[in-house]
Formats: sequence, C-alpha cells, structure tokens
Amino acid sequence: MSTPPLRLGIAGLGTVGAGVVKIVRQKAALLAERTGREIVITAVSARNRDKDRGVPMGDYAWEDDPVTLATRDDVDILVELMGGSDGPAKAATEAAIAAGKDVVTANKAMLAHNGQALAMQAEKAGTVLRFEAAVAGGIPVVKALTEGLAGNEITRVMGVMNGTCNYILTRMEDGGLSYDAAFAEADALGYLEADPDLDVGGIDAAHKLAILSAIAFGTQVDFASVELEGIGAVSIDDIRQAADMGYKIKLLGVARMTGRGLEQSMAPCLVPATSPLGQLQGGTNMVVIEGDQVGQVVLRGAGAGEGPTASAVIGDVMDIARGLRISTFGQPAARLAQARPAKVATPAPYYLRLALLDKPGALAKVATALGDAGVSINRMRQYDHVADTAPVLIVTHKTTRAALDASIEGMLQTGVVARPPVVLRIEEV
Amino acid sequence: MSTPPLRLGIAGLGTVGAGVVKIVRQKAALLAERTGREIVITAVSARNRDKDRGVPMGDYAWEDDPVTLATRDDVDILVELMGGSDGPAKAATEAAIAAGKDVVTANKAMLAHNGQALAMQAEKAGTVLRFEAAVAGGIPVVKALTEGLAGNEITRVMGVMNGTCNYILTRMEDGGLSYDAAFAEADALGYLEADPDLDVGGIDAAHKLAILSAIAFGTQVDFASVELEGIGAVSIDDIRQAADMGYKIKLLGVARMTGRGLEQSMAPCLVPATSPLGQLQGGTNMVVIEGDQVGQVVLRGAGAGEGPTASAVIGDVMDIARGLRISTFGQPAARLAQARPAKVATPAPYYLRLALLDKPGALAKVATALGDAGVSINRMRQYDHVADTAPVLIVTHKTTRAALDASIEGMLQTGVVARPPVVLRIEEV
Repeated sequence: MSTPPLRLGIAGLGTVGAGVVKIVRQKAALLAERTGREIVITAVSARNRDKDRGVPMGDYAWEDDPVTLATRDDVDILVELMGGSDGPAKAATEAAIAAGKDVVTANKAMLAHNGQALAMQAEKAGTVLRFEAAVAGGIPVVKALTEGLAGNEITRVMGVMNGTCNYILTRMEDGGLSYDAAFAEADALGYLEADPDLDVGGIDAAHKLAILSAIAFGTQVDFASVELEGIGAVSIDDIRQAADMGYKIKLLGVARMTGRGLEQSMAPCLVPATSPLGQLQGGTNMVVIEGDQVGQVVLRGAGAGEGPTASAVIGDVMDIARGLRISTFGQPAARLAQARPAKVATPAPYYLRLALLDKPGALAKVATALGDAGVSINRMRQYDHVADTAPVLIVTHKTTRAALDASIEGMLQTGVVARPPVVLRIEEV
Repeated sequence: MSTPPLRLGIAGLGTVGAGVVKIVRQKAALLAERTGREIVITAVSARNRDKDRGVPMGDYAWEDDPVTLATRDDVDILVELMGGSDGPAKAATEAAIAAGKDVVTANKAMLAHNGQALAMQAEKAGTVLRFEAAVAGGIPVVKALTEGLAGNEITRVMGVMNGTCNYILTRMEDGGLSYDAAFAEADALGYLEADPDLDVGGIDAAHKLAILSAIAFGTQVDFASVELEGIGAVSIDDIRQAADMGYKIKLLGVARMTGRGLEQSMAPCLVPATSPLGQLQGGTNMVVIEGDQVGQVVLRGAGAGEGPTASAVIGDVMDIARGLRISTFGQPAARLAQARPAKVATPAPYYLRLALLDKPGALAKVATALGDAGVSINRMRQYDHVADTAPVLIVTHKTTRAALDASIEGMLQTGVVARPPVVLRIEEV
C-alpha cells in the first residue's frame, strides 16, 4: 500500500478508549484489508498514566494534555473519548480542527451543546467530525440516517436510547420492583452515570435525540428545546396498569417535523406491548426512523459497553481511512436552518390515572370535564377504593395535549380528584 | 457549486426505476444540499418506450439498448434496474465498467451469480459498483455491514429477506390457511415473481444471503453452495405445532463462518415466537448481524416496493456524489478468499414431526433410535391417532444434523413410522 498510515491520537482511555486500542492492535490486518490503509495509534492521553488498562500503552507517545495530543504532527485523527460538553473535550476538539485534523468522538453532550459551532469550525477548516458512537452505541444509526436514508425526507425519528432507564423500567415490569428498588439495583450493577440525572432524568437520551433531529431534519442541534421528563415519577402502578391494557412504558425520544415547527420530546410514553419498541428488554437500544420513501426502518442493538461503542468509533475511523469526507450533520453546517421549536401538540392518545374521591357523581364529573374539553374516551376502568380514593384509568382517543390539559383543569375544579392525574402519551408506532 | 452535476443513465423503468426518477425530480434540492453536487438524469432505457410510468420521461434521452445507454458520454453512473443474472443487465453493467463509469444496481441475481467477476472488473477499471437495493430493499444493511460494522469480525448473519414468503407463512399462521390457499392469496395480490420458485423456492432470498456472506466473511460470493429449501413443504400442521411450543416458522437465511468452512443455508426454521425474528409479520424484512465487538445488531424494514427500493438506490448514488469510493464487497475483490463451503453441521436443536404407526412399543423404538444416535430429547408430545398414525412432535437438545439423520435412518428401519419425518432446524437467536 502506497498510502501512508492513518495515525490516531486517542484522548481518554476509559472503557471505550481501551476498547479502541485493543481493536486497532488486534485487528490491524483486517482494518488495512478493508480500508486499503494501515491504521495506527501514535499517541494517547488520559488523566492517569499509570492505570492498568488491560492493554499495553507503552508503544504510544504519552501526553498529559489532550490539547497537545490533538495538535501533534504525527496525529491525523483525534479520537476524543473523554466526555463532557465543554472543558478538555471541547478544547482538544477545537485544537484538532484548527490544526486541520479530523475528529472522531463519542461525546453526545459536547455535540448536543456545541455541535453547530464545532461543525462550522470543521467545515471552515475542511476537516471531518464524526460521531457514530455518540448515539445508540454500536448501532450504526448516524450512518443510516446521514447516508443510507439520505434520499428520504424524514418524518419522525424516535427511540429508546438510554439502556439504564430501559433496564430500570424492565426490572419494574418483570420483577415487580418499585422505582427506587430498580434504581438501587442498576446502581449496584454500575449502570448509572456519576450524575444519575443524566440517565434517569433523560438528559443523556435527550442529547442523542437532539443530534439525530439535526441530521434528520437539516436543522441546527437544539437540545435546549427538547421537552424533557425523566423516569423518576413512573410508578409500579402505572407499569402494571399499562401492561394490563396492552402497553409498556418506555423512556421514548420522539422528534417530528410539523407545520408548526420541530417537536422534540424525551419522556416516559406508552407503546403497544407487541411493537418492536414494546418488546425491547433491558439495556438494549432501539431507533425507529420514518422516511417518506422508505417507510419505517428499525435498528436495534447494544447502546453502550466497550465493544459496541468501540465498534462505532472504529467504523468512523475506517470511513475516514476510505476517504469518506461528509459534512458533520449530513449537509453543510452553514446551511443548517435554525430549528423552529414547537411545543409537542401532535394529537395522540393519552393515558390518565386518576385518584377519584368517594363522592356521588364523581366519575360523571370526570367524564363531563373530558367531554367539555373535546377529549373523547376510548377505554375507562374504575377499580375498588384504596383508602379514600378509587383508581381510575382512562385511555383517550387522539387528542391534543392542550385539550387534555384543559380537561384536567376542569376535573381539578370539580373537586372530585384527590390530586393532578398521571398523564402519559401513547406514541403510535 | 463548482462540481459538475452527476449524471445518471437509468436502465429499466419498472416500479423501482420510476421511483428513482421521481425522487431525482422531486428532491433535486435536497439531494444537492446533502451531497454538495447536483444529481440529474440524462438518459433512460427500457423495453417499452410508450408505457405511462406516472412521471414524464421526455426530458431524458431515450436508448433502446441499455449497453448504448451505459456507454453514453453524458452518463456518469449506470443505474441498472432491469434484473436478471445475465443478459442485458450484465452486458450493460460490463459495458459501463469498461467505459469507466460507476454502477448502482438492485440486481441480486446478477451479483449472486456474477458478483466476483464484476467486482474484479470494477476494481481494475477503478469504478464503483454498489448494490444496497439488492438486499432487503430499503434497509441500509449493505452499508451497515460494509461500513458501520467494518471493525468487527462477523460471526453470523441471518435474516428473513423475502417478503412474499413471510407473507405466506404469516397468513398460514394468522389466518389458518393452507400453504396452497396462502400462496393463491399472495399471487392474487401480485406479490409473486413471474417465476414463483424465485420466491417460494427461496432462490431470491438465497441470492441476498450469498451477497451478505461475501461482505461479512471477506469471501467470494458463493451462491451455489447455499443449502436451499423453499417453503412449499411447510404445512399448516407444523405452523400450529410450532406455535404451540412457542415457535414461529420463518424462511430464514443463516450464514456462519466455522472452523470447517462457511455454512450458508436458506430454509424454513423455527425461531422463538418472542424474538425479533419471531415477531416479524407480513412482508417486512429483517437482518440480524452478529459481530465480535458489537454483539447483535438487528435491522428491520420494508424489503421491497417502489419507495423503499428507490430509497436504497438513491442512497448509493448519493454516496458516489459525496465521493465515497469503496470496494464492491468492502475489500479489494482480488483479495476475497474463495469460500470454503461447509455442510450445515453446527449443532442446533431440531424439531421433528413423525407419523407413528399404531404398533406396540412404537414410541419406545423412536426414542431408542434417537438415543442410539446420541440425540437427546428436550420435549416430546404424542397426540391422538389420526386414521392409522399418531402425530408425534419432538424437540431435541442441540445435536448435529448428521446424528439426527442417523437417528431418522434408525427409526425408518424399525418400521414404526409411516414416512420420513418433517425436520426443521431451530435457530437460536
């Protein structure tokens, strides 16, 4: 091969970084065969030089400072695996781009917060910034959306993209655990981020959704506009009642382009138990893409872990080795339209769980409040009283969130419900 | 944009061809925005010039002969959508390559039979030959395997890749139809190829499997070695009995690299009813890829139809517009190893349905024949006699096909079974 080797500088040697080093070492021949170019590591950087990472690091130059690593003459691609939306990750990425180097990153927070600025810098410098590993781990969804389905106008992207949340919800469902018990179990297994709110608050998954939205709809990443609700308020009661009516509860991200603008939400939703999303168990991720030509494409796989995430990083590196030089979000960054965020208002069926007080005519008043707001009932169940309230479940026909909120306002005014109801959207899949 | 337009010559204006023309016409701005290059059609070719295809063809030069189309000076990419393993499709493809043009095709038969030769020609000429639409329609599975998961050593590829067969099996299952009735229904709906054996004989799906194998394992396409069995012998009895034991019957393609060589089979198999493959209904396709790093990735979507197939063709065209110049099967054609075909011998559980004659000790003799061949029984059920035989169902523990065949030989010799049993592999997913 006459082409010189492609030289990687890896910043961040945690689980994923070590995984990338292992693949480059162990699969050198395979990578060269498939790309027509030798891929080597020249330098690495991490916080702790002396840690045993299960793979020899002595062959590579060591840099304490990732920015210095990023600008080394013998580095062609910065592989940024440190994480964090700003700080060293962003500094190293910017330094690499300024030095005319390509960047491969797994950093969803950085892209969700600074993706547009970085894409603009990369475009100006003529460098490539790729991030398959940032969304849904090993599933090649960024590639599918940016390239394979590029001839489609995308109508909706959705997915379960935080394995920890899906693990917790699955354990509540299968094991009958309370949220707190399932959370504690996930924690004991080491599934939670240092700041658990990134997981259970839905922030990590929302980062990923905002990135997919940008590619799908040709808009600038707009993480701030994602309507965000974590899984902390999901109760075992709702899990059970939903199951009873043929649904599962998932932390579901949905991005949809509407006449009013871009809707993005990351919130617990009901999906049919028999749908691919409903069938998803444990830590697995799933992304559903809907295009005007292709219809619905579903991608499923491991959303995290050393092997899957390293696989995605290496895929990006191999693309660059093969000469693919694609715009960060699939089209020139300067032409990405500013997203016009819209409140989630696409009509959908909703699930309501009410605590009905033991008063004459209480159920009639609830039904009247719904009817007055134009919300029609698909299914309703009242259960036996627990203490002084009776649980009432309602599945509505398709309605807007505004009409639903008006009906709830009406119910609360009648004084027949003990507290505001639990409200979950039912996403049609 | 300073780059000159990318000019397509489309050979074949059936459903997919018309779909491609529509997308290029209607989405010109989108395609240019995403690729940085204008994509235009300059010339077309088909058998019947006068047919109404629902989209105006008058803007394009007409060629009666696809080979002439392929070599026109104003064509950069031949889009081959005629079909057929040889004949005009191959002639036009070879002519285009010889003239230094890139080729995008949806032609699985041509690739299954002539893929290696064409890849060699393209490599020598420095042209690109792409074929996303040839496998599983709109699902970007060729891209996933060739690019996104390129850092993996693939251990198994499998899938349901013929929508017509899956439709027939689903109708037998849901509608309680006989094979003949479900076949007639599919025929009436226009789902069957002119030669139905391409569908129900498993040939079409086997073409696709052989192509995926080549990419997955870096071997030359070896369609001739696929162990092939269609769905014609699947009975409603087996569908029901399988369901009763928690399985579905699918026409499943499985390719696996073993120490003995490459196993490729396309045959009716049992899969767990709750697995993603088991859940697949109707005409949808699914491909499952297993890699040493990524674990299991599942891709699901429409396997045929105008929009999905055209979406895949356009994806390939856009890749070329973006400058991606990748080897046909993901690595240089000259280095693809000749596949070393191996009979399917990886141990698996098997499903047997026997017609047991009403003789004393008959069941014991069957059990003995299994035991003598080293086949152990996981589950066995005997049902009431129908006429002079009793249906007996057996699910074995993992065993080799050779041991199973020996046990069947033994059973037949005892004279207690009325005929050779139905044998279906249970593929673990």
